[in-house]
Formats: sequence, structure tokens, C-alpha cells
Amino acid sequence: MKMSQLFTKTLREAPADEVAKNAQLLIRAGFVYKEMAGVYAYLPLGIRVIDKIKQIVREEMNAIDSNELVMTSLQRRDVWEKTGRWDEKTVDVWFKSALQDGTEVGFGWSHEEPIVEMMQQYIKSYKDLPVSLYQFQTKMRNELRAKSGIMRGREFVMKDMYSFHATKEDLEAYYNRSIDAYMQVFKRLGIGEDTYVTFASGGAFTKFSHEFQTICDAGEDIIYLHRGKNIAVNEEVLDDAVKELGISREELEPVKTAESGNIFNFGTQKTDEMGLYYTDRDGKRQSIYLGSYGIGITRAMGVIVEKFADDRGLVWPEAVAPFRVHMVSIGDVASEAQALYDELHAKGIEVLWDDRDERAGAKFADADLIGIPHRVVVSEKHIKEQVYEYKKRTETDAQILTHDQLFAML
Amino acid sequence: MKMSQLFTKTLREAPADEVAKNAQLLIRAGFVYKEMAGVYAYLPLGIRVIDKIKQIVREEMNAIDSNELVMTSLQRRDVWEKTGRWDEKTVDVWFKSALQDGTEVGFGWSHEEPIVEMMQQYIKSYKDLPVSLYQFQTKMRNELRAKSGIMRGREFVMKDMYSFHATKEDLEAYYNRSIDAYMQVFKRLGIGEDTYVTFASGGAFTKFSHEFQTICDAGEDIIYLHRGKNIAVNEEVLDDAVKELGISREELEPVKTAESGNIFNFGTQKTDEMGLYYTDRDGKRQSIYLGSYGIGITRAMGVIVEKFADDRGLVWPEAVAPFRVHMVSIGDVASEAQALYDELHAKGIEVLWDDRDERAGAKFADADLIGIPHRVVVSEKHIKEQVYEYKKRTETDAQILTHDQLFAML
Repeated sequence: MKMSQLFTKTLREAPADEVAKNAQLLIRAGFVYKEMAGVYAYLPLGIRVIDKIKQIVREEMNAIDSNELVMTSLQRRDVWEKTGRWDEKTVDVWFKSALQDGTEVGFGWSHEEPIVEMMQQYIKSYKDLPVSLYQFQTKMRNELRAKSGIMRGREFVMKDMYSFHATKEDLEAYYNRSIDAYMQVFKRLGIGEDTYVTFASGGAFTKFSHEFQTICDAGEDIIYLHRGKNIAVNEEVLDDAVKELGISREELEPVKTAESGNIFNFGTQKTDEMGLYYTDRDGKRQSIYLGSYGIGITRAMGVIVEKFADDRGLVWPEAVAPFRVHMVSIGDVASEAQALYDELHAKGIEVLWDDRDERAGAKFADADLIGIPHRVVVSEKHIKEQVYEYKKRTETDAQILTHDQLFAML
Repeated sequence: MKMSQLFTKTLREAPADEVAKNAQLLIRAGFVYKEMAGVYAYLPLGIRVIDKIKQIVREEMNAIDSNELVMTSLQRRDVWEKTGRWDEKTVDVWFKSALQDGTEVGFGWSHEEPIVEMMQQYIKSYKDLPVSLYQFQTKMRNELRAKSGIMRGREFVMKDMYSFHATKEDLEAYYNRSIDAYMQVFKRLGIGEDTYVTFASGGAFTKFSHEFQTICDAGEDIIYLHRGKNIAVNEEVLDDAVKELGISREELEPVKTAESGNIFNFGTQKTDEMGLYYTDRDGKRQSIYLGSYGIGITRAMGVIVEKFADDRGLVWPEAVAPFRVHMVSIGDVASEAQALYDELHAKGIEVLWDDRDERAGAKFADADLIGIPHRVVVSEKHIKEQVYEYKKRTETDAQILTHDQLFAML
């Protein structure tokens, strides 16, 4: 895409009230716009990143036989009253409003209760199990404070998945498959090496749930890491976990992390509460086992920003970068730049061409701020010798490459 | 996709309180689930249709140089107060709530004001114009009644586009390009022949706005059609239009229609009200011309259902069908069915394979209800002779085709 046709604009400064590094950089680089604290619009560059993250998540959820749907944001009071979670003393992040006839409605901060309610229509017998469903949903959470940029918003995009099973064993097997799928997601997003499956507090049915915690200075959590055994434990269950897992407190190293995902085994608690059952082969009514699995999509984008950005701007891993190549043309090289642009396109390489009438320094500064992995300069100086200046975003020095060397590099 | 792996279930009956034909059929066929009146979840089959409609719209908006972004649902009071539209006496479809500190927020029923406000950050000089932006957004409208299924929801998906221009002429030229783009969208959706660019009431700057009205018995509008001159007029501006266009009232035929899209020339009214200006080449402050362009995505899906469905169920036009081929296997033909399924896949043809252990009659009834354009039956009876039973959804009688004839047909 030509930058002259892309709606984006780098800004010298982020809004004064924006304290999170991720949002400051994303606003300055033209990826997001701040509507209010914790509420961000996604501009064309931002959407490209979000769509890539979503697609990676989608492929991995499809690979474990989950089906994509989309639930509603508007939710019913009676559905949430079945588990006592309509009450604002229990759930303190509700946004609520009312229909014109006075009927109260809530805006979805989670979809566990609504999907269990919906399944009353689709799960009748053992033949309907197991089933796994996921969605990308804009969640609304009325957070008291919203100071973490897109890492914890009042409006944000989440992938939430729910699986329903006839037996405890079937749920546990699926739960373990989902752990592998999640780790595959984080690996593909470029944060796999720093993301740990972490023991966290469970519920009525299981001692532990699992979080996926990514080492990140901007994170809000502390986990305790046993690097040798690759075990990670959330602070909240430290005592229990140490006992259970046969590790000693002293071997554990505290690290600051951001929660990139979490999964939860509800057992039959929620389905029982809501009256969702199935009929087995013998015609007997049986409880249904429920698992719940979340990944914050916009949050993952924020974690990636926080982890990789440097003092010059954003640094995107290849898999989620808005474009693969940032081509900068300098001087009177329109036809040569067009030729390279066309050739990159023909090879299926996504390229952003800075064709603006700006000085080289400003273009380079913007390229660093935007953070696309590969920068290629087409300049009057070099084009006579049929060479290009090439620089990786993560490196400081550029190299001079011939046409063939350049394409070998990309 | 194999139906045994698809989350869907046809239902014998729609909920008793559902009065709209489109929602009744979509619920029975397993495309949508009703959360409450005017609020529907989209199941996997439904998402496939929505995504196809979106992709067609996306391609046509990109073709007129518009850029995709996504605004926020949570909106600020101060932004809407600038035009007086925060007031519920002016806008009667607001859902409102409040942050924990008491700050009122609204849920986006439209995004005109928020996008004009946002552009304060991005439009400074004549160099920043023209610019066109669009989004697919889940809109919230607190409709008093919601009896039209997905054709008029309280929560629905809309494509809304906004264009900003330095001059009246530039806006008018873009407005006309958008008319062509919209007609191209409706043509590709399969409703082009029955969709009319219709004169409707304008505003401070223009006598008329334009609606795209699709002939549809379930529609809520009446337009007056001059078939000879291909002119359509909304009832509300009939007298004005008759005068202006030099047609006589008697030549016009009243037809029931559904509004599939609308476009509006705001002139500089809204941008002036909100204080959005640009600086021209001479450094002078100038007003900005704004156009606004909407297509209801879920509404379009509803219109398509209403127009084409028959007494056996849904009938999807090729371009938006969830799958192209509905393959039904009957009896002990697993390997032959698998071979055909693989071959269709290899040719890039999307196929839904009803591999369920059900009797043929039930499978055929479901195929008709779901409405995929081409049905292919692999049965014990015919497979010995290496032929397939083929039926178009729109036809009643099946034909017997050889392998080559079948692929020639698809």
C-alpha cells in the first residue's frame, strides 16, 4: 500500500493523560486513537495487526475442532441471575442500561452464562457432546481505573472459548489440548519463549486454573518461576502449589508478567446452576462439564508492544506486523520504486511504500516509529548502481544489497 | 466441512415470540440464536454469510479509496452535545450507562459525531484532504419495538463510511462514486436488480439524500417507482421530487421496499458545528464537506432471506451462501463421498458434507432449510453407476449427472 493512500499520521506527542507506554506509542505511530480512558479506536494500521492476531488464534482454535460464532453484547438479567452474577456486589464491572419499557439489560463483560443458556437449545443428548465454541467479541468492562492502555480496557476484543463435555475425563483431555493450542498461539505471536503456563486459583471443582503469563515489565502480575523445571505459579496460590508440586519456595524466582490468557475448568458447577443437562444412552439425565478459555486479542497486541518496543518506536514480530516491508523512496526514483513495489507485491510480500513528499530523515523516523520488520530504501544515490539500502527494524546499521541479495533476505 | 463437526442444529420450530419470517427461518436453520427481541447471536453458518457480505462491501469500499478502521462503541457525552444529539428528545434510541465515577457514557448508535471529533487530530491542512474511512461496527439502538428480526435490531452490524472534502464539488464527485460502489455491492449480493437509488429527504445543504431501496414484501417503506425512467422516490419527498424531476404522480407505481443502504451529503453543517476545519494553501481556515454512507450488514442478510426464501426454507444467492455445495451421503458410501469431498475441496469449492447418521428424507429437508445453492447426493443406488444426483436449491427436480457433468455444472 502507498502511504499517501493510507489513513495514518504519526504524531509528535501522545495525549497528555495517556500514561501507558503501549498506548502512547500506538497513538503516536497512528495505530490507535484514544476515545476515552481504556477505550481506543483502531486505525487502519491497528486493524491490520488485530486481524493477524485474530487469524492466528482462529487457526489454532479451529485446529482443536472449535467452531466460531458471535454472541451478543446486550445481555439478559434473568440469565445472569441464575448464578448470582447480575449483582454488582459480585461483579463490579457491569455496564447496564434499560430497554424503553424499563427492562434492564447488561453489556457483555463475559459470555459464560449466556452461552450456557443458549446451549439449552442445542444440547439435548449425549450425541450433542462434546462441543466447543469460540468467538471474537468486544467486551465491555466498567473498570474503576483504566491506566494500562490497550492492555486493560473498558472496551476490548477478546477470544473466548467454551467447551461442553459428557465426562470429567473428556473435559480434562480437551483442557490439555487447549493448553497446547494456546502455547502454539503465543509462539506464533512471537511471545512463546517468554510465556508460561502458570498455576492460578481454581474453583469448586479444581484446585488450580491455568494462566498464560508473559514476562513483561508493564505487567500487573507477579509469578514465581522455577526455570529448571519450567514451572510457574501465580502469587495467589503460591503456598498450595509449593506443597502440591514438590518444589521449594527458595528455588522460585519472582518475575513481573502480564496475563495473556487463562483457562478454567468449571466442572459441572455452572451448568448445574443454570440447569443445562444431557440425556445419556440409558435415557438418564446427566450433568455437563464446562471449560472456559480466554485470550485477550487487544491485550496481546499491547503485550507485544510493551515487550519489543525500543526508544525509537514500535517493533513488530513478523507474524503480526501490519506490513512485512517498509519501502522508502527518496528523490526522483518514482519508476524504480514502483518497479520494486510491484515486484514485492507479485511475490506476495506485503509492503507499505512511503511515497510521501517528505525529507529522508522524517521518513526514517516514521519507519522506526511504525516498526515494520524490514526497511528498504530506494534512493537516487544507490539506484544508479542498482542496489538498495536494507535495514532490519531490530538493527541499527543498514546494508547495501543487490536486487538478488534483497529478495534472498526477504 | 463435515456437518458432524459443524456446530449447527436445525430446529422444528422457532421461538413462539418470533414474528419475523427472516428470523424464524434463520433460527430454524441454525444460522442465528435469539438472545432477546432485536438481539441475535450468529452461529457458525450465520457468521459465514455475514463474513461474505462484509468482504463484498470491503472490496467495494476499498475500490473507492476508503480505509477500514474500527471506532468504539463507548462514546462521550461532550462529543454528542456539540450537535445537540446527546439529548434523548432528539435521539430516542440511545443506550446510556455511566463509568464508576459517574461520568455518563453512551453506546454507539451512530458514529458521525465521534469520527468528526477524531478527525480534529488528523485533518489540519488541505494536504490531509480528501479522506474516506469506513468500519464494520456493532451498533446499539434502543428501538421501542423490535419485530423485524435481523432487519431492524437493537444490536446489529453496520458498515458506515465517512468522507471529508475540501470542496463541495469534491464531495459531490465522491458521493456519486459511492452510489456506483453501492449499486455494485447490491449487484454482487444478488439483490441489484431489485434495488433502486431512491430520492429521500435531505438536510440543510441538499434537497435530497439517497436511499437504496430493495423491493421486499417484508420492507417497512413505500417507494414510488418510475420503471421507464428508472427513478424511485421515497413517499416522504414525493411532492418535491415530482416537481423537481419533471415526472407526473400518475406514472409512479407504489412498491413495498426495505432500505438496504443510505447516503447523505452533510455539506459543512456538522463539521462546522463541531469545529472541524482545515487550512488552505493560503493559510486560511476553511470549512470541511462531509458525506456519510451506510449499509446494514445484518439487515442486508435479512433482506436476502426475505426475498429469496420459499416454503421449504432459505435460498442463498451464490455470493453469500455459507457453502457452495451441500453434499449428502446416503448409505454405505463413506469412501466415495470422501473422494468427492476431497476433489471439491481441491478445486476450491466450499462444501458442507452431511455425514450424519440420519435418514435421507431428514437430510434433504435440512438441505432445503439451510438453502445452499447446489445439492449433490452420493448414494449407494447411484454410485455403482458412477453418477450423482444433483439439484439446484431453486429447482424442484434432481438430475442424474456423471462426474464430469457434475463438475462442469459447478
